[in-house]
Amino acid sequence: MQPDRRTVLAASAAFAAPTAAPTAAMAAAPPQVTKTLAHYLVTSRPGDIPTKVRREACRSLLNWTGVAVGGSRHVSVAHMLAALSPFSGKPEANLLGRREKLDILNASLINGASSHIFDYDDTHLKTIIHPAGPVASAILALSQHQKVSGADFLHALHLGIETECRIGNAVWPSHYEMGWHITGTCGVFGSAAACGRLLGLSEQQMVWAIGNAASQPVGLKVQFGSMTKSFHAGRAAQNGLTAALLAAQNYTSDNAALEGKDGWAQALSHGANWSEVTDGLGTRFEAALNTYKPFACGIVTHPAIDAAIQLRNENKLKPGDIAAIELIANPLVLKLTGKAEPKTGLEGKFSITHCIAAGLVAGAAGERQFQDAVVRDPVMIALRRKVTVHVDPKVGAAQCNLLVKLKDGRSLSRHIEHAIGSQEKPLSDAALEAKFSDLAEGILAKDQARRVMDMCWGIEKAADAGGLAAAAST
Amino acid sequence: MQPDRRTVLAASAAFAAPTAAPTAAMAAAPPQVTKTLAHYLVTSRPGDIPTKVRREACRSLLNWTGVAVGGSRHVSVAHMLAALSPFSGKPEANLLGRREKLDILNASLINGASSHIFDYDDTHLKTIIHPAGPVASAILALSQHQKVSGADFLHALHLGIETECRIGNAVWPSHYEMGWHITGTCGVFGSAAACGRLLGLSEQQMVWAIGNAASQPVGLKVQFGSMTKSFHAGRAAQNGLTAALLAAQNYTSDNAALEGKDGWAQALSHGANWSEVTDGLGTRFEAALNTYKPFACGIVTHPAIDAAIQLRNENKLKPGDIAAIELIANPLVLKLTGKAEPKTGLEGKFSITHCIAAGLVAGAAGERQFQDAVVRDPVMIALRRKVTVHVDPKVGAAQCNLLVKLKDGRSLSRHIEHAIGSQEKPLSDAALEAKFSDLAEGILAKDQARRVMDMCWGIEKAADAGGLAAAAST
Repeated sequence: MQPDRRTVLAASAAFAAPTAAPTAAMAAAPPQVTKTLAHYLVTSRPGDIPTKVRREACRSLLNWTGVAVGGSRHVSVAHMLAALSPFSGKPEANLLGRREKLDILNASLINGASSHIFDYDDTHLKTIIHPAGPVASAILALSQHQKVSGADFLHALHLGIETECRIGNAVWPSHYEMGWHITGTCGVFGSAAACGRLLGLSEQQMVWAIGNAASQPVGLKVQFGSMTKSFHAGRAAQNGLTAALLAAQNYTSDNAALEGKDGWAQALSHGANWSEVTDGLGTRFEAALNTYKPFACGIVTHPAIDAAIQLRNENKLKPGDIAAIELIANPLVLKLTGKAEPKTGLEGKFSITHCIAAGLVAGAAGERQFQDAVVRDPVMIALRRKVTVHVDPKVGAAQCNLLVKLKDGRSLSRHIEHAIGSQEKPLSDAALEAKFSDLAEGILAKDQARRVMDMCWGIEKAADAGGLAAAAST
Repeated sequence: MQPDRRTVLAASAAFAAPTAAPTAAMAAAPPQVTKTLAHYLVTSRPGDIPTKVRREACRSLLNWTGVAVGGSRHVSVAHMLAALSPFSGKPEANLLGRREKLDILNASLINGASSHIFDYDDTHLKTIIHPAGPVASAILALSQHQKVSGADFLHALHLGIETECRIGNAVWPSHYEMGWHITGTCGVFGSAAACGRLLGLSEQQMVWAIGNAASQPVGLKVQFGSMTKSFHAGRAAQNGLTAALLAAQNYTSDNAALEGKDGWAQALSHGANWSEVTDGLGTRFEAALNTYKPFACGIVTHPAIDAAIQLRNENKLKPGDIAAIELIANPLVLKLTGKAEPKTGLEGKFSITHCIAAGLVAGAAGERQFQDAVVRDPVMIALRRKVTVHVDPKVGAAQCNLLVKLKDGRSLSRHIEHAIGSQEKPLSDAALEAKFSDLAEGILAKDQARRVMDMCWGIEKAADAGGLAAAAST
């Protein structure tokens, strides 16, 4: 009369949950993570956020708008549009950098994906979350469905970024090591929180929005190198917006979806440090730690590119002046970007020698310097071949020494302690604008790009934040 | 010059993936799970599936249609509609049991959720996956966008169910134990596979569809007891359909998303037995193992209900005849359904005494017997109080002994070795029809319900499978 093990398990599991839910809620009672977070999200006031932190949100918005416009003509966006636009609803929301309009759910998906295509978006360095994409894509689309003031928009953007980065901190590093692409998995919470705020959710509804979002994580690292990588950022935006819209209609989820038994952290991490979520809400601002990539390639190449650009500009170097180049760097640099003879633009991003050559020749390493034609340019090929890379584990990954030997016998060298774009040496507003202009070139007219940047800087004063989306479309 | 640990990790992780992808593909080269599965999915022919297995797909379809119609008037469906219909696209697809039409992506979500609301859908007992919901909801909606023959429809339904159950087998039980709601997390693959087949994907595109689906798992067990539980089944349908639509436009994902480093199984399980996916494709049919619940409550109560109904029917018992009832059952029965004094219909599902009373009084335990009014009926209350439950670990969870002592002194007893609805004692076609009729009552007219059931039985001969959706709407 003994059933087989599977049958017992099946019966047990099929029934475990309804009894498990209250138990989980009780076990998790002390931290009450989901509820504490929801309470903060619905009670925070725009004026509670310090000026400096609000300014960082403007910088995040400007950077996001630039990368979304820049990515908008990528073939993967065209594929998404072909697949999904036949099913789009009312065309209320603009696609940045494009002429099409879609319903707000589809627009949040495509703008979010577009902004992550070049891997050139903002970075919360503690978690490697790219925070703006999942949040801004969702709330900008939502702002084209209902009128949202610029002040509320910026506040929601801040709250969304704060939410995803705090949850990311709580499960870092085990969550990332398991294989999750943290921008998508935590981004869905940022989107739900920000959209929920703009929808005026009650605390209970915000708990439900976070809970429904918890059931929809997006993104595995295995996808890096495929189109689905940037899909993660957009789908996170769309899922979070969906969760908030459902919660606004009293669609329920568990009250402890983050911390409860059989909840998000149990399934997606090896344990969470919940104080990262619940401590210092309103006084400690993760969103203030956002950084912006100056170069359209991985962070490990940035010290060398920074050094190359500095030496080029200070010495007015020309490719023909250079006899040899030596880089002393952390071993990761060769491990991750050791491609000696890149053939395509994408391969160029994984070639430290190409990155250095770009810095020396163009004084830049934007998307332009990673076009196929640039990688195949004989001047670049020749210069790349003059680079020798020495690795030394004593050199930190954020540092390097670059030595440039000139044909006239001189030797120039530069030590980088913190590369441009790091938290210690943040990108200036002017550099952010230069990056935006570079990304928008050929898509937005110069005066249009200027207008969009001004709108980002002045978003808090805008009567209707959704106007930004129309302004950044073509 | 040592950076802090976080910086190194950040730099490392930001770069790990592009180099990791090829490595992962190499490491996973021997099984080539994703590719092997995709190859089968695009080369299988309808005629390759044995008649008996195709018949099981018809039974799955009929059962799914019934539960979707039955759930369609639940308040959670109304909430979803209120939240999402403002953003729906072209109203091509019917909502079962309702009058509204939505775009196919939204319809797949809502029909899928509707079919899981009563937890009364089909069950693949090895994994506790409810297989039909995520697959049928997606392909039926898709069949209203493009013309799909009934034969192709049934074949796709079979392939989808086969796919999700095989992947579920591969990661069972660790995947479930981590906290995942396996119907949503594996269901997305079933939907992607079935929709991909109907969209005529190439093998490479099918690999991409499976891969994109892998990035969109849905569902945590923490949600059991909330509306988000049934959301999982619908969102899995919608995500799989999305993945297939994207793949049809050559939207790429990794070629080894299931088995690769930082892939699905790594993140969502403690190791996969890939032979469960790749062995015996086309000769071993998991889809043939589908079962259908005869009673609208958890499996652990089914032996006792089965015994109660048998004794009632054979002896024409009336509640007034009964003096006492004793059940000898597995300890799980009291652990999971030990609620002695249920006050609501939902609580009644977790009360073994109510379940037995329902069997004895009504000869049934459908949704009707779990309405609040029935649970509060004095006749039911009185009968419940006559039940004593004895637990014995030597009694299997699939078995029981039920003893009914009558006021006239007689004692009736029944041993159940395999309850009705188990694999050993499957629900008959007639019982499936009775279940359907019960669920459809008050929603579809009797002749309409008859017509829909006939369409399910005869789906293979239908010229246009999408007609089923229109026929089952109001």
